[in-house]
Amino acid sequence: MTQTNSRVIRVHPNDNVAIVVEQGGLAEGTIIEGGITTTMAIPQGHKVALVKMAEGDQVVRYGEVIGTTLVAIASGSHVNETNVQLPTAPALDELPLATREITAVEPLEGYTFEGFRNPDGSVGTKNVLGITTSVQCVAGTVDYVVQRIKHELLPRFSNVDDVVGLNHSYGCGVAINAPAAIVPIRTLKNIALNPNFGNEIMIIALGCEKLQPSTLLSDRPVRIYENTQAADPEANVLSLQDDSFQGFGEMVEGILAMAERHLERLNRRQRETCPASELVVGMQCGGSDAFSGVTANPAVGFATDLIVRAGGSVMFSEVTEVRDAIHLLTPRAIDEQVGRALIEQMAWYDDYLSQGQADRSANPSPGNKKGGLSNVVEKALGSVIKSGNSPIVDVIGPGERLRRKGLTFAATPASDFICGTLQLAAGMNLQVFTTGRGTPYGLAMVPVLKVSSNSTLGKRWHDIIDLDAGRIATGDASIEEVGWELFLLILDVASGRQQAAADRLGIHNDLVLFNPAPVT
Amino acid sequence: MTQTNSRVIRVHPNDNVAIVVEQGGLAEGTIIEGGITTTMAIPQGHKVALVKMAEGDQVVRYGEVIGTTLVAIASGSHVNETNVQLPTAPALDELPLATREITAVEPLEGYTFEGFRNPDGSVGTKNVLGITTSVQCVAGTVDYVVQRIKHELLPRFSNVDDVVGLNHSYGCGVAINAPAAIVPIRTLKNIALNPNFGNEIMIIALGCEKLQPSTLLSDRPVRIYENTQAADPEANVLSLQDDSFQGFGEMVEGILAMAERHLERLNRRQRETCPASELVVGMQCGGSDAFSGVTANPAVGFATDLIVRAGGSVMFSEVTEVRDAIHLLTPRAIDEQVGRALIEQMAWYDDYLSQGQADRSANPSPGNKKGGLSNVVEKALGSVIKSGNSPIVDVIGPGERLRRKGLTFAATPASDFICGTLQLAAGMNLQVFTTGRGTPYGLAMVPVLKVSSNSTLGKRWHDIIDLDAGRIATGDASIEEVGWELFLLILDVASGRQQAAADRLGIHNDLVLFNPAPVT
Repeated sequence: MTQTNSRVIRVHPNDNVAIVVEQGGLAEGTIIEGGITTTMAIPQGHKVALVKMAEGDQVVRYGEVIGTTLVAIASGSHVNETNVQLPTAPALDELPLATREITAVEPLEGYTFEGFRNPDGSVGTKNVLGITTSVQCVAGTVDYVVQRIKHELLPRFSNVDDVVGLNHSYGCGVAINAPAAIVPIRTLKNIALNPNFGNEIMIIALGCEKLQPSTLLSDRPVRIYENTQAADPEANVLSLQDDSFQGFGEMVEGILAMAERHLERLNRRQRETCPASELVVGMQCGGSDAFSGVTANPAVGFATDLIVRAGGSVMFSEVTEVRDAIHLLTPRAIDEQVGRALIEQMAWYDDYLSQGQADRSANPSPGNKKGGLSNVVEKALGSVIKSGNSPIVDVIGPGERLRRKGLTFAATPASDFICGTLQLAAGMNLQVFTTGRGTPYGLAMVPVLKVSSNSTLGKRWHDIIDLDAGRIATGDASIEEVGWELFLLILDVASGRQQAAADRLGIHNDLVLFNPAPVT
Repeated sequence: MTQTNSRVIRVHPNDNVAIVVEQGGLAEGTIIEGGITTTMAIPQGHKVALVKMAEGDQVVRYGEVIGTTLVAIASGSHVNETNVQLPTAPALDELPLATREITAVEPLEGYTFEGFRNPDGSVGTKNVLGITTSVQCVAGTVDYVVQRIKHELLPRFSNVDDVVGLNHSYGCGVAINAPAAIVPIRTLKNIALNPNFGNEIMIIALGCEKLQPSTLLSDRPVRIYENTQAADPEANVLSLQDDSFQGFGEMVEGILAMAERHLERLNRRQRETCPASELVVGMQCGGSDAFSGVTANPAVGFATDLIVRAGGSVMFSEVTEVRDAIHLLTPRAIDEQVGRALIEQMAWYDDYLSQGQADRSANPSPGNKKGGLSNVVEKALGSVIKSGNSPIVDVIGPGERLRRKGLTFAATPASDFICGTLQLAAGMNLQVFTTGRGTPYGLAMVPVLKVSSNSTLGKRWHDIIDLDAGRIATGDASIEEVGWELFLLILDVASGRQQAAADRLGIHNDLVLFNPAPVT
């Protein structure tokens, strides 16, 4: 990164635009790099032209073309979505696959965290009773019972951190045999296996739903809890329509009794020292601005590389924010097969969007644009930096579980909550979330660390943001320094030594399933 | 209805199958109507053949063909989805439109309830502060604040029944310019206008989202509440990203202050005597069985006609459970235009399902089949009976508001929660929900009355079911008697004299939006 002076940032020597750093933006007539004078006021985070451009010229940021000018633009002028045309997306049929030479990196040794090791070998960062639901019909009942469990049972199980109802809007009233139904079904099945739930599976079902609990337990025995028999300590399914429950009161008592058995086992979990290679970190961004790609996301990318060097697992996601940078990613695939898998995920999503008469230009929000991001190309180039510099060792589809250590592309929509839900299903035990505009995002299942891309937000949302990467823009910290801070913070939070801001405040968002199939 | 004896029910004289009434079903060798002997055990709610049928014969129930036999079936045998073939759906291009003569019905006068009359003329059945959210990002914060409002503010406003956060999974990360995006957007806009919220509109926004609050308030002045200004009593939008909020604590204080102003106004609402013509009742069924079409739904249909005779409004919905009975509905349209509107909604859904490689056969659940419903035709014939015998005066699309009194077809998916959400948007002030298998459904926004189709469920779920229509099958009550009971119960619950079971127990389901457009 070439920091030209304290007022603007140019990321790459070939860039013909720079980003305004100064809080409050630049006034008309301000002199910046190379004696260029601004011809108009330009807000913070927005782009200023460093050269005179004719109509049709390429606008270059991150050393990549982010569009062509729709009109002539004077040096020192504001460059934004009104005068830059979105280029076509990179064609998917001629991309270089696995062409980048894989250079040996020094392993990072000696870093550990205190985690909960599970029977299946995975490691949790929290000790949570996750109550899976097979259908939306039971959500109101589960919400009611979770409150009762928290007040009546949880105080007796001091090693258990929380009880979470895994409610969702799937399970019935859906085309369960449509081809795309595989996505929500495997998502629910795999979320139940998230390492923070300690391999305890407890499902509340209705009875008549399309998504039968046996589907969610396809590789485990289904053991039904019935009210009339002595409670089976291994019971993993309770159906509200079971004949043995006479009314709501008995259902609730049944769920409480079943929860107690699971809490007893979870309470025996103890944190133990685990190598950093047991980290499974999901990287995400939401409410991005033009700083995201020069501060927070590069710092996250640096931390990604540290985790990979330590032998851990990192996912990056968000297909529509990767699509326009795909030509930078396919060369980083570890082999051609992984490269083709990347392309397949892009092609699936192109098709999905076009079926709904939408395309990738639907991605950026008004806030992204206010934050200086002119289009999805600029957003994508800034977004993929979260993936650092490591080779991409695997690609998984939405709702699938992670298969390999190292850096995986976990294909998900960019919607924060859907991406979070799918990364939970993939098995993350911690999430890092960067934001420029600010979102009070949180998940009850795993800690979420929020990193601000600019210090204006970092200071204003002092109690919501966990780490301020805006210090990189002001020159108060380097990308490497913030990357290391994040890595160490991840280890602290994964160990329970420190709480994520969202957990401290108690702000948690619900799961949102990705269901590309119709509802009925 | 021809009740042949206490063991089976035949609905229509032309039917060649009857439904087993007896709890526990019929054993092999049981003698029923006309000296027919069962050739095998047949479960309760399932169909028994009343005649010998050859392969390819028509199976008739409700006087309508529900399928053709796949094999020869002996008289006294079990008829179900394994030996009946689904017929093709009625073609949409040759349906009779508005052909049924409209007979004058005697107006029903003198029935009233105690409701909350609103400035816009609508009448509420509860007094609720509904907090609209423009985007899912604020849901965790709204959940947190709603708890604070309930504990800190609500006790001071004794006329206000509840505070509800209208959370959902829309607003950003979605293709907001896709043609189908109109559905979720108008749904959110119209839910805020539900009569139970007393025309008070309070929106919690983030700031950078695609669904801007101004869209939700397009016909009202948008007044942004800022923390630094004196609280505007008319303020109706608070954005968490507003510069004036220094951190989470100040956002929460801002929301509490805004809620207080709205609670002050809501607290001045008083119940007053209103004619039954102000009822706006949504009819729905979920977890249906073979009794639904002979007990609960006919009783609901009778109550529908009573409400219409009293000048009130009734909606029925659930396109996939109407599609196969559409030929019975288009003649009941009040004019050809309404008839064509019915057909348009069917055609839209046929297309929507086929885009997802699904069709109407995706509707029935395993529980429906266990309950004796062989296919979607039989389910639909039993479902549309909820609409009674009144003319259909209007058709609205998903998320639209009701325009006319009388009986309207409000097109929605059959998914219970999506249908409920869309009927809320249409403006219902009470919902009736029939069930045979049993679902503990509830909405916090309006009372939901649950009617059981069989007494086995009605007795077992004694505290969840509001009214047992199973007494119709056992001969202990007539359709007319249960219909009148339901009508009078609606008036009691709408008046706050009696609580719906779900409200008494505190079981409430979340909103689920219908979003046929892609996520990004």
